[in-house]
Amino acid sequence: VRLAIVGLGLIGGSIARAVRERAVSTEGWWVAAWSPSGAGPSEAVASGVIDAAPSTLAATVADADLVVLAAPPLACLDLLASLADRGAVPLSPGVTVTDVASTKEMIVSRAVGLGLPFVGGHPMAGSDRSGYTAASAELFVDRPWVISPPPGAPAIAVERVERLALRCGAHPLRMDAAAHDRAVAAVSHLPLLLSVALVEAVAGASDRDEATALAASGWRDMTRLARGDVEMAVGIAATNARHLAARARDVRAVLDRWITELERQDGPTETWLWAGFTAARDALARD
Amino acid sequence: VRLAIVGLGLIGGSIARAVRERAVSTEGWWVAAWSPSGAGPSEAVASGVIDAAPSTLAATVADADLVVLAAPPLACLDLLASLADRGAVPLSPGVTVTDVASTKEMIVSRAVGLGLPFVGGHPMAGSDRSGYTAASAELFVDRPWVISPPPGAPAIAVERVERLALRCGAHPLRMDAAAHDRAVAAVSHLPLLLSVALVEAVAGASDRDEATALAASGWRDMTRLARGDVEMAVGIAATNARHLAARARDVRAVLDRWITELERQDGPTETWLWAGFTAARDALARD
Repeated sequence: VRLAIVGLGLIGGSIARAVRERAVSTEGWWVAAWSPSGAGPSEAVASGVIDAAPSTLAATVADADLVVLAAPPLACLDLLASLADRGAVPLSPGVTVTDVASTKEMIVSRAVGLGLPFVGGHPMAGSDRSGYTAASAELFVDRPWVISPPPGAPAIAVERVERLALRCGAHPLRMDAAAHDRAVAAVSHLPLLLSVALVEAVAGASDRDEATALAASGWRDMTRLARGDVEMAVGIAATNARHLAARARDVRAVLDRWITELERQDGPTETWLWAGFTAARDALARD
Repeated sequence: VRLAIVGLGLIGGSIARAVRERAVSTEGWWVAAWSPSGAGPSEAVASGVIDAAPSTLAATVADADLVVLAAPPLACLDLLASLADRGAVPLSPGVTVTDVASTKEMIVSRAVGLGLPFVGGHPMAGSDRSGYTAASAELFVDRPWVISPPPGAPAIAVERVERLALRCGAHPLRMDAAAHDRAVAAVSHLPLLLSVALVEAVAGASDRDEATALAASGWRDMTRLARGDVEMAVGIAATNARHLAARARDVRAVLDRWITELERQDGPTETWLWAGFTAARDALARD
């Protein structure tokens, strides 16, 4: 497989390392990578992690069988537009293009609209760190790797993306793009939004300094996502707005019930509180 | 100082260990402990961490200069009632009673109402683990230890609690009980409520199994608090309901603004999203 990775940060770099380092033999995989800054590809080619670091996007993808767009959602949409400009960036006739972005519906439909031979992908793995220096061959091991083919995608294209996921040690999981976006809105994007909303609410309070002086591990855990990469967060909210808004309405309805109980004239009833906290614990125990 | 610790779980046990293990000399501190089950005190007396494990609450506190109620909020309120029954549980004339519970206003005012010589306390330290086996002499090192004396508390009583906090390596921090409860509502109890609300919202969704199959580290972080001790959570919500409800209303207002933006006809604007995510990041950077 001739693999071209576009963007060589945490995810793209980890794919490159996994392809090179995890297999018994690297035979059969030839890897080129390009990124806007070029920093990751230079380092990766110098250390033998990739085979080539061409200076242009066009040269990087020219002979590839599989192109992986390893960029945040909005940058991924821009890359799709670049790849669709066949005059500037010629692709091999049998190429498959995939991506690793956090949202799928808008990206898959854009790719299809542009006539690209596309199969969406999303490895469910990450790290607090970012950039090529944080890349690890083990990042995807035993993690789900969602694969979202558009209707009518050729089997060979889907299998190529599955082979990449397996090579990285992940479990390929076919999922409709909309179902994926609804699911990650719940377990990934809503948590991000709640983390941000928590910070915003407390930062806007008159006693914010007094309050944050008492912050402990609970605060640190619940605000970790709000400390993350802003470009990524914007891309997620911009490309999964509808599902995220629906999840936010769900949590708002739950909050309303808690507020009503907490504001009862005589204080909340202990049985209600026991039931509420126990239900959450039990739901997590089922996972 | 003759110290009596009532409840010998994570916090009470860590106080006992800190008093015994952290100082160059243990001279001057004699420690007795009692708990409803008796398990922690038996283990602690056998290993020399405490000096005595009397079989009754009355015998444990009888000669103490300082009584530490190391129990969750609602159990702490019950203990105050027990201590106020002077016929059953006689206290030394010069004793000071303190506690370590997560909320202060209701506990301090109850103690004062019962005529107890009370100074509220709250060491801002915890652990995912609980029980005496999780106790550590280092738990409080460099953490704030809030001390909330009621109006008119004698200086000697406040100093006794401060000495305990210092002995444990903590930083004593005097704070009005209401200000404390408002502050921890923001940085501790609201995070707990949001964690529970997140779980409840997702658990109630029709695609909950599909969603949780994609859960990664963000979900784990944001649901950790909801996995915690239910008795503690109920006690917190029951005894800090007013401040917690006010904080929940703050976060609800923030969520409403996000929902409005996410649901805009043409999708959210990127500049709005950038501003929102950047503001949260910047607020955290100030902490």
